[in-house]
This record gives sequence, structure tokens and C-alpha cells, in this order.
Amino acid sequence: MTVLQPHHSNQFSVSLSDIQRARDRIRTFVRQTPVLDVVGLAGCSTQRLWLKCENLQHGSAFKARGACNAVMALSDVEAARGVVTHSSGNHAAALARAAIQRGIPAHIVMPLNSARVKLQAVRSLGIEPILCAPTSAARESMAAEVQQRTGATMIHPFNHPDVIAGQGTAALEILEQVPDVDTIVVPVGGGGLLAGTLLAVKTLRPEICVIGAEPEWADDAFRSLQSGRIEPALRTDSIADGLRTPLGTLTFPVIQALVDKVLCASEEHIIRATGEVAAVCRLIAEPSGVVPVAVMLQHPQIFAGRNVVALISGGNLDDPTLITRHLTVA
Amino acid sequence: MTVLQPHHSNQFSVSLSDIQRARDRIRTFVRQTPVLDVVGLAGCSTQRLWLKCENLQHGSAFKARGACNAVMALSDVEAARGVVTHSSGNHAAALARAAIQRGIPAHIVMPLNSARVKLQAVRSLGIEPILCAPTSAARESMAAEVQQRTGATMIHPFNHPDVIAGQGTAALEILEQVPDVDTIVVPVGGGGLLAGTLLAVKTLRPEICVIGAEPEWADDAFRSLQSGRIEPALRTDSIADGLRTPLGTLTFPVIQALVDKVLCASEEHIIRATGEVAAVCRLIAEPSGVVPVAVMLQHPQIFAGRNVVALISGGNLDDPTLITRHLTVA
Repeated sequence: MTVLQPHHSNQFSVSLSDIQRARDRIRTFVRQTPVLDVVGLAGCSTQRLWLKCENLQHGSAFKARGACNAVMALSDVEAARGVVTHSSGNHAAALARAAIQRGIPAHIVMPLNSARVKLQAVRSLGIEPILCAPTSAARESMAAEVQQRTGATMIHPFNHPDVIAGQGTAALEILEQVPDVDTIVVPVGGGGLLAGTLLAVKTLRPEICVIGAEPEWADDAFRSLQSGRIEPALRTDSIADGLRTPLGTLTFPVIQALVDKVLCASEEHIIRATGEVAAVCRLIAEPSGVVPVAVMLQHPQIFAGRNVVALISGGNLDDPTLITRHLTVA
Repeated sequence: MTVLQPHHSNQFSVSLSDIQRARDRIRTFVRQTPVLDVVGLAGCSTQRLWLKCENLQHGSAFKARGACNAVMALSDVEAARGVVTHSSGNHAAALARAAIQRGIPAHIVMPLNSARVKLQAVRSLGIEPILCAPTSAARESMAAEVQQRTGATMIHPFNHPDVIAGQGTAALEILEQVPDVDTIVVPVGGGGLLAGTLLAVKTLRPEICVIGAEPEWADDAFRSLQSGRIEPALRTDSIADGLRTPLGTLTFPVIQALVDKVLCASEEHIIRATGEVAAVCRLIAEPSGVVPVAVMLQHPQIFAGRNVVALISGGNLDDPTLITRHLTVA
């Protein structure tokens, strides 16, 4: 287990007190999501397993936490000029929603090939996404152009201190809801959720093991820990569309210093986990959201006998047949 | 609003203290299910709306509460002879599970035409249902035969004091979880859940309005309140398969004395509510479970401006296309 020494907390851009302040700031705008104990998940080796249901968060994703914290932390002058981001995923709708809650404009740049359910989520809030080509360069240049034109504040999906602090609030809830937890598993894409979780947990309960979970087809965090630098994505076709992103310059140092382990899951295990969570728990979760369950099914020896909380990060499923196949009884 | 006078509590077979004792008895065997506040449900007129998620209960239905209370209340001598019931629905698996938890035999009589998902739920616990013809007479005679042969105790799905007391425990949780509630809506089939809810709520918080929700195609509770006697089902084809049952001799007097209103929902509204709960809340609920939401969509004038808890009674959906149609984004 990695233990965060007191002096560590100063080396990162976010501290426990930032996360605690975030919790107070967003309390009336996001849900304290429930934790469900799971019984009867086939192939699960844990002593006990709980799901932290961020798929039941507003907007069906934990992203409400970071986006809301970043928007509510703006000064009135900054806020009046609006916010801008680029995102193919749940951060897009989360930022749009937070901006509406504050009554300010939101400019949401999204790649053309974003999941339909995630484009629709932004549109259903009354905001038309600004579409761009599906490359990092196109996303960034389009967002920069909007920022220059409007004076809006850029709220990056994960490489932003207030976003990281906001994502860490889920971990504060876990520690209160499941005092007996000894292992916490969260998905890792850009690393905002994992970094926020680590900063909270390794300060308050350093003996708890924190594991990042990512697809084998998007194993950049695993490779980055091996090489000691931020590795790019090698492919962009994992079914876990929310986790295809490389780590950020703010998230990688936290993960490198504090994470106990990053585990990878095959596409097959991710698909199976999506179905099992629906069939056993009656929860609609998206593939990215169940990768923590997928790594538990794929690496049972690591979780044997443990008391595990798996954070289910989102419920915006683009292909409902992933769950109906498991719900259909022959 | 109906106010339960102190003397009323003696006229029924179940009292508030029975429900409070049930809660202590079943505490380690059932979940305290979460309550989710709902935002963005189209056509909803309430000031605030929360869902009490009994679809996230063990066995995906509130039935765990009553079955567990009845099984755990048996003396050791009674328990050793096992339990028997007849049920086409969630009580079947709930009783099987409670019997397994106590380590005693369970004999589960189910009509041949039970929903596949509900037959499968019993089988997946390692108990083979005893199949019978799909009539009340066949169910009762088969259960009586098993009872005579084995000496098992009959645990009726709803017409049993310990079952009613167990079902009432969900209402105790609602009152704690949502102190501001002014209206509670629960499905009504045989009436165990509604009777238990009424006995708890009308004793502790008589000013709260309690509404029973049933399908138009299974409006026997509505008709029973009009005629003053237990009316039979006139058809048995509502998609809400858990609510096709007439009221029982123990549940009807409680409902007649204490309920504020019984509202009916069309099949169309029940189907729409199933999809909306999946799309907006990411919850898998069965048609019977969402009838409280369906009546709110169908009778918006009754719920305008109210703070409503709708109890979602179960999540055992036989036809997953009911939710996938709503989840699919064009």
C-alpha cells in the first residue's frame, strides 16, 4: 500500500482540503449516490463487493462532480463570460448542465464520432454541440478558437485542478458509506477520477488499496506507469469509449506517486461486466463504467478475500443490446 | 387525508409495532434501498419526485421484506418443517431465498404461465418450482397438497400478517429518508405492500397522502373500494403481471379504512413509464414496479405541486425491449 506522507500533499495541484471544499460547493447540485452491496455476481472472488453508483448521478455520470465544482468556483466576472470544453463524453453534458445551473453560457466542442447518447445528452439540455473532426488537434484548436472569440473559461475534462477536486468527492462519500472498505477500484481514462480518489483516500485512509481499471485496448495508464512518462493511446476502438484518453500533466504525477496498481480488462470482460451489472444489480451502466467490475472478473486472484468498492462511473450506454442479451431469459 | 385514530390500530391484524419489529428482524437480510430524486421526467407535474428503489432490493423486489419477516418469525419447530407458497411472481423467489437464509426447505408452487424471468429466479437459487395450471383453484389445491404432505407452513404472498408487516418496513425507511414527503404512491396487487405502507404511515404521519396505483386492466382494488367488498379480477392480461391479483381478506379492510385514493394507469402509460425510468434514471424496473410513475403521468393534475415518493416495487423485467426502445438514440 502506498502511504501519503504529510509533505506529499503539497507537491500536487490539488489537496484534500480542495476536495472537502468541493464537496461543500457542489452539495446542492449533485447527488450523494448510493452504494449497493452485491450478492451473486458470477466469478467474483471478493469477500464483499459494493458498487458506488455514479451511473445514478445527475447526467448519469460522476462527471457532474468535477464540472460543477469548476463552474461554481469561477468568480462572477469569469462566470459571466461562460465556459468552453472539448469532450467526446460525459463531461460535455456535465459542463453544459453545470453552466445552466449557474445561468451562464456553455460552448461544448465534440468530435463528430462521439457516442450518439452523449451528443443527445447535450442537445437535450438545449445546447447544440460544436462538432469537430475526431482528433485531439481538431478538438483543441476548435476549443481555443471558441475561447478566443468568447472569452469563455476552458474547463478541461480532467486536466484541471477544480475538476480533479470535484471528482475526488465520490471517494469521500465511499469512505463514509463503507467504513470497512479495504480496496477501491475506479476507471482510469484521463485520470481525473483516479487522481481525485487517490488524493482523498491516501490522505485520510492510506492503508486502503486504490486500483485503477482500464481497457487492454486503452492501456496507456499502465504503460505510463512502466515508462515513467505520459504514454499516448495506441488505439481508439475500445468499447469503453470514455477511457480512450491519455493521462494529463496534472493527473499523471498523482497517479504515479500514489496508485497501488493499474489493472487492464479485455473487451470481452468489459462486455460481460456490462451485462452482469444489469442482470444481477438491475443497473444500467455503460462499458466504461463497469471496467472496475471487469478487472475483478479477469483478475480474481488479486481480489480474493477483499472488501471492495467498485466505482461504476457512468450509465450512458450507446448500445442497449449489451444489457438486453443478459436480461433475456431463454 | 385519512387520519388513523389510535383505536383503529387494534382493528387490523397488523400494528405499527409489528412493522417496527419486522424491521429489526429482517435488518441483516434485506437492503435499506436508496431513494433517488428525479429530475427531467417528461410530463411529471410534481414539485419534487423521489423513487424508492425496491427494484434494487435483494431479488430485485420488495417481496424480500415480507417473505423474510415471515420466515424469520417462525419458531424453530415450525421452521424445520419448511415453508410453502403459491406465486406467479417475485414472492416465489423471495420466499425461496429467505428459506435458504434460514436453512430450511421451501416448496414453491408456480403457474405454468409465470414470467420466465420469475421462474428462472427460483431455479437460480437451486429450487425447482412445482408447476401447476394457471388458475387460482389449481394454485391453492397444489399448495394445500404440498402442505399436507410435508407439514410446511403456508406463507401466502400477501394475505399473511407477517408478510404485510414486512412490506411495511419500506415505508418506515421512506419516512426517514424523505422527511418532506407529502404523498406516497405504491403499486397495489394483492395489497400487502399498500396495507403495510398504510399501517406505518397513517400511524406515524397521518397527514401524508397514500395512493395505491394499479393497472386499468387490473382495477380490482378501485372497484372493491367502490362496491365495499373484494372484487375479482376481470381480466388477467395486464403487462403489469405482478398486479393482476385480487385483494385479500387481511389487506382489503386496511386499504378500505385508510387509503386516500386508488388511481389506475393505462397499459400505454405503464409501458411509457418503464422506458422513462430506464432512460432518465438508469434503473431497470418491471412494468408492475413503475405503475406509481404511470399514474403520475396519466393524472398530472392530482400530483401538481406535491412532494411525492413513488415506490418502484421490482426490477424483474421479462421483456427487455420495453427499456431498450427508450435507451436507443436515433
